[in-house]
Amino acid sequence: MTAGLVLSLDAMGGDHAPKSVVDGAALFLNARRRKVRLMFHGDENVLGPLIAGHEVLRGVSEIRHTDTEVDMSAKPSEAVRRSRGSSMWNAVHAVKDGEAQVAVSAGNTGALMAISKVILRMKPGVHRPVIAASWPAPTGFSTVLDVGANVDCAPAQLVEFAVLGEAFHRAMHGVARPTVGLLNVGQEELKGSQVIRDADALVRAAGLDMDYRGFVEGDDISAGATNVGVTDGFTGNVALKTAEGTARLVGGWMREAMTSSLLAKAGAALLSLGALKQLRARMDPRNVNGGVFLGLNGVVVKSHGGTDAAGFATSLRIALEMADSHFLSEIETNLARLAALEAPADGGADQAQKESA
Amino acid sequence: MTAGLVLSLDAMGGDHAPKSVVDGAALFLNARRRKVRLMFHGDENVLGPLIAGHEVLRGVSEIRHTDTEVDMSAKPSEAVRRSRGSSMWNAVHAVKDGEAQVAVSAGNTGALMAISKVILRMKPGVHRPVIAASWPAPTGFSTVLDVGANVDCAPAQLVEFAVLGEAFHRAMHGVARPTVGLLNVGQEELKGSQVIRDADALVRAAGLDMDYRGFVEGDDISAGATNVGVTDGFTGNVALKTAEGTARLVGGWMREAMTSSLLAKAGAALLSLGALKQLRARMDPRNVNGGVFLGLNGVVVKSHGGTDAAGFATSLRIALEMADSHFLSEIETNLARLAALEAPADGGADQAQKESA
Repeated sequence: MTAGLVLSLDAMGGDHAPKSVVDGAALFLNARRRKVRLMFHGDENVLGPLIAGHEVLRGVSEIRHTDTEVDMSAKPSEAVRRSRGSSMWNAVHAVKDGEAQVAVSAGNTGALMAISKVILRMKPGVHRPVIAASWPAPTGFSTVLDVGANVDCAPAQLVEFAVLGEAFHRAMHGVARPTVGLLNVGQEELKGSQVIRDADALVRAAGLDMDYRGFVEGDDISAGATNVGVTDGFTGNVALKTAEGTARLVGGWMREAMTSSLLAKAGAALLSLGALKQLRARMDPRNVNGGVFLGLNGVVVKSHGGTDAAGFATSLRIALEMADSHFLSEIETNLARLAALEAPADGGADQAQKESA
Repeated sequence: MTAGLVLSLDAMGGDHAPKSVVDGAALFLNARRRKVRLMFHGDENVLGPLIAGHEVLRGVSEIRHTDTEVDMSAKPSEAVRRSRGSSMWNAVHAVKDGEAQVAVSAGNTGALMAISKVILRMKPGVHRPVIAASWPAPTGFSTVLDVGANVDCAPAQLVEFAVLGEAFHRAMHGVARPTVGLLNVGQEELKGSQVIRDADALVRAAGLDMDYRGFVEGDDISAGATNVGVTDGFTGNVALKTAEGTARLVGGWMREAMTSSLLAKAGAALLSLGALKQLRARMDPRNVNGGVFLGLNGVVVKSHGGTDAAGFATSLRIALEMADSHFLSEIETNLARLAALEAPADGGADQAQKESA
């Protein structure tokens, strides 16, 4: 099953590309025995020597040359018009053509979303792609979506996110029946915006076969109160970056504490023999770097634009896990469920709104 | 100046009240030499014995009896109608009457806001109260507002928040000219919702005498990229709770790491002689517990509903710092500046919208 796995990389996307992409690919391959082939899209004159510098990349890498790349600050609509044949475009197209299972890019998010939508098209019943992120929790990971694709979301979109996120979590994190919560500012039903309250009513009225737990708050994500946290792309993006920033701040304090005195240094030295190293890895946002676009006929992974090689390697690991999972069939099962309920769901929402009015 | 300071406490508000309030007050007073008087509003039959149990509270505490309290789940509109004479109402009223400088409550947020608005009234030029929180940053604290009072915000309201938050930060954290940022999902101007972009245009067009730095992202708060981060109450509340949840998660990992083996335990023992204790204190969300209501003719501090004594003590420390500061005059200076600019600011916003259309 894994013999033919190919990951398609936008080698020119990201602030530190192509070096972060090639070095990240080498880190990724060094950490596993699996046979994975990599397809690098970008300038072969630059990529050739970079790839040649890594023993582990030889024999499993292929360069697909292109001269053009998508500007990091291009508007999505411009990007779609002008990006045909760019490294990002070609990386996604390889998935459409069946040459690769997953595309990975650290380029411009809006452009990657627009290009993915044009090339791969949405699955029936999904209106726009949504970005899901895996978030550390005490017993593994939580899934949060949307973390940046859709700034303003209607209630029906949030229901789509719940359906997509539940399938993603089952496929990616192996939980048979993930619990789902809707991010809000309070657990009482009277709190929160109208959109959130309508979305809550919509999910309940739809009678989806899903373990929906109602409203959750910001601290419930890290606590793992539900497996999946659903929110709009503005709130989700701010929350994700806030969590990363907090982890970085606390990491800085920890380093300070461990070097504050000779005794502290001695203590840290003992600790770092094992546990501290693992702790640092757990706190490193680069180890959870990679948002997955859901709702498309194909899998695209978005790495942070500013990531380094270690962060890009994580995105490749996520891409490989996605390629290995039953993700697309899970999504299809859930979407079929949503489609079957579509008419009653709308009716139920109208009714719920009337009741709350 | 400090001899006459009185803090007015809603002794019945909060999940663990009145014990958390009385124990918190004792913790607070034990940690300082300052002469501060405390006014407890609540049931004297319950409060009397609790207060008598703390040596430090004797002679500086006064009980103002009331039989009624505001229900934690009451709607704000109900609360205002029914809460006259409750512990929360009376706590805020003592500020209005000049008997106390600051009111503190861990009760129902919506009710506290509604009651504060009715009793203290808004300052001229401010439409609704906003809650500001202090957030740990590498070199002290960042201020974030709104963290929960206003779920949906118009652009003009976000400008008010900027003006109020800048004055708060100067008064509370002693920065002469705080930098101000608007929370968004990306630093490029083309990203973000229409409301955020309009607010950005409005601040720029207003020509306020303020060090406004444009858009910031979620991770900029903990990095201290700007002193003040402005956002709507939904996003701010989710971000604040996410940061708390992340700190708690990382704290849990740290405890795990430090008890994972005998060597690790020995290392932790050396560390905890000094630095570790400070680190733990820094990471404890209870040490930043307390939102300050801005925009009213008087100061009200909101403690977390679920807080324990340690968290409530922090809210009292914040209340005391506010009472000691030039906060109300700073706010008045800033609001006068906003009022003077009001007409040109509106014109500027219209123009900015036309330009971006």
